[in-house]
Amino acid sequence: MNARLNPPQKPGATRTTAEWQQTDSAHYLHPFTDSAALARKGARIITRADDIYIWDSEGQKILDAMSGLWCVNVGYGRQELIEAATRQLQTLPFYNSFFNTATPPAIELAELLAEITPPQFQHVFFGGSGSESNDTVVRLVRRYWDLQGQPERKVIISRKNAYHGSTMAGASLGGMSEMHQQGGLPIPDIVHIEQPFWFALGRDERSERLSREEFGRRAASWLEDKIQEIGPGRVAAFIGEPVQGAGGVIVPPSTYWPEIQRICDRHGILLVSDEVITGFGRTGQWFGCETMGTKPDLMTFAKGVTSGYIPLGGVMVGERVAKALANGGEFAHGYTYSGHPVACAVAVANIRLIQREGLVERVREDTGPYLAQRYAELAGHSLVGEAQTCGLMGALQLVRDKTSGAPFPAELAVGMMCRAHCFREGLIMRAVGDRMIIAPPLSMTRAQMDEMLALIRRCLDLTLAELQQKGAF
Amino acid sequence: MNARLNPPQKPGATRTTAEWQQTDSAHYLHPFTDSAALARKGARIITRADDIYIWDSEGQKILDAMSGLWCVNVGYGRQELIEAATRQLQTLPFYNSFFNTATPPAIELAELLAEITPPQFQHVFFGGSGSESNDTVVRLVRRYWDLQGQPERKVIISRKNAYHGSTMAGASLGGMSEMHQQGGLPIPDIVHIEQPFWFALGRDERSERLSREEFGRRAASWLEDKIQEIGPGRVAAFIGEPVQGAGGVIVPPSTYWPEIQRICDRHGILLVSDEVITGFGRTGQWFGCETMGTKPDLMTFAKGVTSGYIPLGGVMVGERVAKALANGGEFAHGYTYSGHPVACAVAVANIRLIQREGLVERVREDTGPYLAQRYAELAGHSLVGEAQTCGLMGALQLVRDKTSGAPFPAELAVGMMCRAHCFREGLIMRAVGDRMIIAPPLSMTRAQMDEMLALIRRCLDLTLAELQQKGAF
Repeated sequence: MNARLNPPQKPGATRTTAEWQQTDSAHYLHPFTDSAALARKGARIITRADDIYIWDSEGQKILDAMSGLWCVNVGYGRQELIEAATRQLQTLPFYNSFFNTATPPAIELAELLAEITPPQFQHVFFGGSGSESNDTVVRLVRRYWDLQGQPERKVIISRKNAYHGSTMAGASLGGMSEMHQQGGLPIPDIVHIEQPFWFALGRDERSERLSREEFGRRAASWLEDKIQEIGPGRVAAFIGEPVQGAGGVIVPPSTYWPEIQRICDRHGILLVSDEVITGFGRTGQWFGCETMGTKPDLMTFAKGVTSGYIPLGGVMVGERVAKALANGGEFAHGYTYSGHPVACAVAVANIRLIQREGLVERVREDTGPYLAQRYAELAGHSLVGEAQTCGLMGALQLVRDKTSGAPFPAELAVGMMCRAHCFREGLIMRAVGDRMIIAPPLSMTRAQMDEMLALIRRCLDLTLAELQQKGAF
Repeated sequence: MNARLNPPQKPGATRTTAEWQQTDSAHYLHPFTDSAALARKGARIITRADDIYIWDSEGQKILDAMSGLWCVNVGYGRQELIEAATRQLQTLPFYNSFFNTATPPAIELAELLAEITPPQFQHVFFGGSGSESNDTVVRLVRRYWDLQGQPERKVIISRKNAYHGSTMAGASLGGMSEMHQQGGLPIPDIVHIEQPFWFALGRDERSERLSREEFGRRAASWLEDKIQEIGPGRVAAFIGEPVQGAGGVIVPPSTYWPEIQRICDRHGILLVSDEVITGFGRTGQWFGCETMGTKPDLMTFAKGVTSGYIPLGGVMVGERVAKALANGGEFAHGYTYSGHPVACAVAVANIRLIQREGLVERVREDTGPYLAQRYAELAGHSLVGEAQTCGLMGALQLVRDKTSGAPFPAELAVGMMCRAHCFREGLIMRAVGDRMIIAPPLSMTRAQMDEMLALIRRCLDLTLAELQQKGAF
């Protein structure tokens, strides 16, 4: 105890932004952050939120086009979710599901998930996050093959630029090179093929553009190549996000996933759909695999399951794997917070709200197509080399030359430049390199979409102006 | 969507136990469970809780001497925690701390943790659980040595029968053989030495009992041996629970940890204290390392930080590591729920409640010593070979022969027999093999302790009677 080092705290409500920032940099190591650099500029303190807006400690209102971090799908301030949490906290704030016990909210959520997921999914294994869920996949997949008498099937194939969480196994499944450079990753028997990113990779040997459809088949064929390289008898599973999220909202060509499914089927390999971002309506179906037309064996989820109000994640376990597990005795795996009653109660309320308001249908039939139409218009902007959407996810690739698709020099950090304009103008839009991405709340109205789109166009214009002023465009 | 397979749900309140059980086994894969076996007997449905008691769907009241799963340290139904959650859900149910943003509750909790932890800890990295926090340790430790220009220091030494979570890396750090048998664990560069378990291992080469003190020094020397075997220049860290929890509440001899500290210091190896169970007052100090007299470089926590009301975990980062990180640019690691505002708000309320009610002091000066005294009496019971306590953790080793310490045959499953009696009598006491363990809420009064101790003695008597009836004693 070092009371001397820590002066008595001021109550939160009375602190200034500078005071928050000072305490922040003294004690709080942020995720994916250069702490020293952050300390120099000071964090932005987000103090409250409502609907699709957040406010910072200086009173600035910001339209949150990223739904927190791909999670606040129903928007902020939803009383149904808050009441569900409060009620459960009063009744039973915690109990575990080890040692033959269970709680009603965990059972109710398991039942509801079986209802809203594709028919092969009748069972769920709960974790506390997307990371824990994808990490669970590694143990689950290997356990499955052990029980099948094929323990040599250990290799999981993933993709470069994929994101599957940040535990050792999650980050190994992911294909983020800057993560692999720290901590001795990936762990053994996880390998990566190239991503189905047409804009970056969709050229033939003579650098001619392939059609999207042709590229989709080609990108899928890299899985077949990798399986042959490893030996089909050693491959356990393939994992992918239906649409790569943190990688930059990479919407694959329509030919990609059906071909991946055929390759997995041909070799009897388990197909794992990481639905942490694409689940719960984001793509205009309940789950991204439905939009992409695959039938996965395992499906991980988190984020949208509670709209981020309380941490929760899990793995939907398909019939094939569930049957094997059921005959296999104890699966020696689980988390203290697996099936946390408050998290599960909030998830039940969240899913019921999505059902009642028809948010999945709204994205599929109304706001999703509208976003696609408006993004097609934005594709005409001088800075935009590619505009993609899928449901309520969107990406704008900023380029130096629209025609050739030539990028800006990396040192210009055009994505960060654009993001800074967004912050100033009151818009959260994320930069992945020079690719600007959004995933706004599914509860968004048309009027709010127009407001968001006007902000996006304005920030593109401001970025263009800054580039022109710097003589870089 | 398979509406046909799932009949319309009955609202929770109106379901019978049998209905809950049926839905449970149809959809919910419990952690660390043989699902088929559970389906045959049906889960016990825990529906509500208050203070130190839980109730099942049949209305049975049960004294929860395990605090949920070592977490509900302040007891159930605490209005301060519920109100803190509700208030934060209303204000800001989620925002992330990526991209240079932060929220007041995360900063406030970081500040408070710096205040209540030992002086070397001024920084915290948040995760969502104990698993995520211990998993983070692997990346953090290796990142540290990379930044020190010693990337060959990768090996982390842990102990057999340790528990450090259930992610691939967490389970690898842990030393649970039944977990290592599934999924290809441990991952590389994690090795294990024997545990400081005097009752099981405290004999010399001629099978004579060593004194506890002598055994403690011997058990610590196994770390030195392992370091020499691996090569000191390859060892990154040693991790241990101050008191092994899930391993069976193994309280090490007083000579153990000081010697471990000396060995780590001698080789410059990072010392990691896993305080997921022992943190927040459990041992009679805020953290177990204070009780054991060590000065760790990293300290993981979860469970007691929020009393389990909302999932949260984290790593306290000591000065030595924090300094290196600060000069190292971005640490490419983090979780969506890192610094979750609702979890952090509940943690702040929980810690303030522990402070206000003086629960740490109560355990240290009143209930801890009282439990020790009463367990010393229980050591006289015919079934008990060893009785250990540390703060409000307790273990009773059930044996066939008190004098020799000879165990029961494993097939008798005496621990499970005793646990079944506890369930019937209205007591949650956990069995680890034939070792019966408790970790009751720190808020417990003396009268409640007497009630618990009477139940424990009664269940030991019932177990003894059953064994005698079976001719096994």
